[in-house]
Amino acid sequence: MRQLRIGMAQINTTVGDFEGNYTRILKSIEEARSLGVDLLTFPELAICGYPPEDLLLKPRFIDENLRYLTKLVKASSGITIVAGFVDGQEDLYNAAAIIHDGRLAGTYHKIYLPNYGVFDENRYFCAGTECPVYVIDGVGVGISICEDIWYEAGPTSAQAHSGAEVVVNISASPYHYGKASLREKTLTARACDNTVIIVYNNLVGGQDELVFDGSSLVLDEKGRLLAQGKQFEEDLVVVDLDIAAVLKARRRHSGWKKKPLPPDGHKWPTARIVVSQAPPATTKPGLPQRQVKTRNLANEVYDALVLGTGDYVGKNGFKKVTIGLSGGIDSSLVAAIAVDALGPENVIAVAMPSQYSSPGSLSDAKLLAKNLGIKLLAIPIDRVFRAYLDELAEAFAGAEANTAEENIQARIRGNLLMALSNQFGWLVLATGNKSEMATGYTTLYGDMAGGFAVIKDVPKTLVYKLAGYRNSAAGAELIPASILDKAPSAELRPDQKDADTLPPYDLLDPALTAYVEDDKSVEQIMAMGIDEQVAKQAARLVDSSEYKRRQAPPGIKITTKAFGRDRRLPITNRFTG
Amino acid sequence: MRQLRIGMAQINTTVGDFEGNYTRILKSIEEARSLGVDLLTFPELAICGYPPEDLLLKPRFIDENLRYLTKLVKASSGITIVAGFVDGQEDLYNAAAIIHDGRLAGTYHKIYLPNYGVFDENRYFCAGTECPVYVIDGVGVGISICEDIWYEAGPTSAQAHSGAEVVVNISASPYHYGKASLREKTLTARACDNTVIIVYNNLVGGQDELVFDGSSLVLDEKGRLLAQGKQFEEDLVVVDLDIAAVLKARRRHSGWKKKPLPPDGHKWPTARIVVSQAPPATTKPGLPQRQVKTRNLANEVYDALVLGTGDYVGKNGFKKVTIGLSGGIDSSLVAAIAVDALGPENVIAVAMPSQYSSPGSLSDAKLLAKNLGIKLLAIPIDRVFRAYLDELAEAFAGAEANTAEENIQARIRGNLLMALSNQFGWLVLATGNKSEMATGYTTLYGDMAGGFAVIKDVPKTLVYKLAGYRNSAAGAELIPASILDKAPSAELRPDQKDADTLPPYDLLDPALTAYVEDDKSVEQIMAMGIDEQVAKQAARLVDSSEYKRRQAPPGIKITTKAFGRDRRLPITNRFTG
Repeated sequence: MRQLRIGMAQINTTVGDFEGNYTRILKSIEEARSLGVDLLTFPELAICGYPPEDLLLKPRFIDENLRYLTKLVKASSGITIVAGFVDGQEDLYNAAAIIHDGRLAGTYHKIYLPNYGVFDENRYFCAGTECPVYVIDGVGVGISICEDIWYEAGPTSAQAHSGAEVVVNISASPYHYGKASLREKTLTARACDNTVIIVYNNLVGGQDELVFDGSSLVLDEKGRLLAQGKQFEEDLVVVDLDIAAVLKARRRHSGWKKKPLPPDGHKWPTARIVVSQAPPATTKPGLPQRQVKTRNLANEVYDALVLGTGDYVGKNGFKKVTIGLSGGIDSSLVAAIAVDALGPENVIAVAMPSQYSSPGSLSDAKLLAKNLGIKLLAIPIDRVFRAYLDELAEAFAGAEANTAEENIQARIRGNLLMALSNQFGWLVLATGNKSEMATGYTTLYGDMAGGFAVIKDVPKTLVYKLAGYRNSAAGAELIPASILDKAPSAELRPDQKDADTLPPYDLLDPALTAYVEDDKSVEQIMAMGIDEQVAKQAARLVDSSEYKRRQAPPGIKITTKAFGRDRRLPITNRFTG
Repeated sequence: MRQLRIGMAQINTTVGDFEGNYTRILKSIEEARSLGVDLLTFPELAICGYPPEDLLLKPRFIDENLRYLTKLVKASSGITIVAGFVDGQEDLYNAAAIIHDGRLAGTYHKIYLPNYGVFDENRYFCAGTECPVYVIDGVGVGISICEDIWYEAGPTSAQAHSGAEVVVNISASPYHYGKASLREKTLTARACDNTVIIVYNNLVGGQDELVFDGSSLVLDEKGRLLAQGKQFEEDLVVVDLDIAAVLKARRRHSGWKKKPLPPDGHKWPTARIVVSQAPPATTKPGLPQRQVKTRNLANEVYDALVLGTGDYVGKNGFKKVTIGLSGGIDSSLVAAIAVDALGPENVIAVAMPSQYSSPGSLSDAKLLAKNLGIKLLAIPIDRVFRAYLDELAEAFAGAEANTAEENIQARIRGNLLMALSNQFGWLVLATGNKSEMATGYTTLYGDMAGGFAVIKDVPKTLVYKLAGYRNSAAGAELIPASILDKAPSAELRPDQKDADTLPPYDLLDPALTAYVEDDKSVEQIMAMGIDEQVAKQAARLVDSSEYKRRQAPPGIKITTKAFGRDRRLPITNRFTG
């Protein structure tokens, strides 16, 4: 057979939702059958969801996953399926099942287990040691899982050298900005170097701190893009692979195979396992035309935040959210994202003005709520604030006023939002940005309070870009210009501005990125042309606020290094800078 | 040479405190010199502190650690030293430096890298591939690091088979109850199986969630305890090793070496590296008599909590702590621990009574504060509570009263403590126990508020035992009987009792331990003889409160599985039971 019709089911799984994931898988199988798909693929650990973390230590979680694998095998009549699951019962493997027509024809074990950044796969899994080539409808197909394909000398070249014309990689690759193009570049090199078709099936959906962005890819043997899955949406990508072209290209460039395999490429046995014979040629239904939206940076990040928020809320069983609207840009952006994720009827804004709120704060919040079509509650905090100060008067007697009074106000707002959450079951969305989280310019249990911190990984300068993008997409001032233009302020004392305490964000953010995401030293940051005072202050503030971040709600990773599982620093630490 | 005088410096290092750690190391060297020590050992990663976590990703952290290694080498005249450091600059190794008389004579790389429980060593380190035998003063000494000695077929047997009479293991083994006796059992087996003297030098001190308990050991070739380091205290253990006895035992039981090495035991090259020649025999100073305190379970856990609390507070630059005293047993125990760790002058208690507080609450808190000799502030919360309810009245109109009102009270108390913390620089100690953390019977930002949660890993039933132990150690009712005897209550509504919501703790705790620490299923818990309703409720409550625990302050691990780095479950998860 010289043509293979493949389908990539880019589905949105949920960790531990075996029944729900299985339902999605069955739906994709039906749709794929109707399109005449020969080989249908699913993402990494599609059966149990990714990443299951310490659920993998519960034997009954593994058993349940194997039970659903058995169900899937029974449901595979007339089609070949590759789907991720957890193999084993004592020693666990991150595995791909190769299923054909009611039979489990093979199991591949992931060889490269990522254990950096957000990944802990060595905590759970043993590494695979074999990379067979499966012969599916007469075509040699190498199977690999996520990290496996990021290594030049990994399974891909071993499989290509052993006769695979196609390499299928099932993946759960978390999003950060620019990741999709990085993947395309890497996979293009892998296709060209090995004269092999690459079928890369990524996961889509939000899971706690992670968003999986889909953007699945099919690249031909010359690295040309044949098809692409939608970004941030479920998709079924169906495409015909021209196997004859691979063989032709290999004959023409017979040198491709003479390039010696890198040393690693030899160490895994590469058996040839026949899964299915080529069926008699039949006429297949035509395939619908596909179009994939192109995005710029702000657009991409915005959509990632919408998907991450919607999935966190929905997958955790919430319907409505509540947000404290200060009249500032952070909470305005979070409200816009929430509305795009959940609909205006599911977002309740709360203005909580105080004596220090500027006159514009409440009116800006009202205008924003009107623009977004969301309900706005107003609960002033002065009376509660005065009650706190009265009760603390004796204990505070003689002490100088400091941030204690400011933090009390922030915490009153946190309490009010949590009270509404407890009363009505609304999830509180925290509105702090990454610049605040990095510097500790935020109040623990105050503005940090909430179940989910939507823009926790978004630096302040990017917050402005996202707001600008959203307005331009709306073709209107959805977020009012008065909000975009005002100087950032916590409004916790008279005429307070962020710039009283922090360097301007356009100077601060590059220093924070260098320090947090790139682990650069103060000297290296200064060598980037950043002012010494800014560099030193940035490093000092990041170092001294580790304890706050440890108690922060989870939020969506959109950079190369987010606060959370991605960055694990001790609180007790004397090393700085 | 047939005798070797070894010293184990069981020091309390701090992560990132290169200068402080180095000062402690120098002090131990001086003391060891005065005692005629030939070979002086220090714990794992003694130079940089353990565990440094993502500080290891900062190249300048590695450089600083190498700079201090160089200083240590220069300070080693006339003595042999084994000390932990981070080797490498690109690829990192968890390493032991073998230093003799101003020269770095060798470097051992840890072979087994733990990557389970609280450990993430694969995230940072490459595994070593060699286990040489170092010839020190004519004695064959195998060096290994922590995890290496837990494997029967690990470096110990390879080194013994290659002529090591002594195996030195430098370690940073975190405490959980019973761990010291588990270590002794394992090390005894290792000594007997290999007819080798085991010198096991453990770390001591608190580091965020972990307490290292010291309890260093020297076991002779027959597994007999030669010397033991203090538990929960710094120590320098000096002991003379009788090498002739090892050789004699090996000759007598010549069979020991004929037992084939396990397969793993062959895979590392075991070169013989001469570090130092045997010096001429001299008369050495006599060694002081040693006595090590014996402890029972409650005593051991209590002392772990005292050390962990004192070190968290001190190493993070705090002097004083504040604690909300409810008149209940949890906060009473935490206050007693804080007093033992920091002294009564550094503990400020705060009673925050409400209309729902029982008459005894305030009087019990006063009596406890008097017994402990600590200052007690009283700040009633009713006025602030009423102010919240007034401001929320419109938003809450028509809704039924639920836990929202209860949580407001708990959060007012959290805010008051945080206000005192912000005003005076006192660290807030949270007082929740493990049974509450497990079931979510606690208020996020309320009683969960604080920088450090002292008894977070202590089940309620053990809280009672610890209080009883402390009273019996005092020979007096330090914690008043009225506190020990009252039924547990959150006192957030009239006549509320924990037992209204939760099963009795003596039924609940075994179910929680089985579910959380042992990953048992509801069926397995029922098979232990636990009531079905209790087992199901325990599992359901644990599953549904993951989001609260994610925002909890760190606390001290004292069980085999603590909430925190030790247990990593997704919040978004549909798998239960």
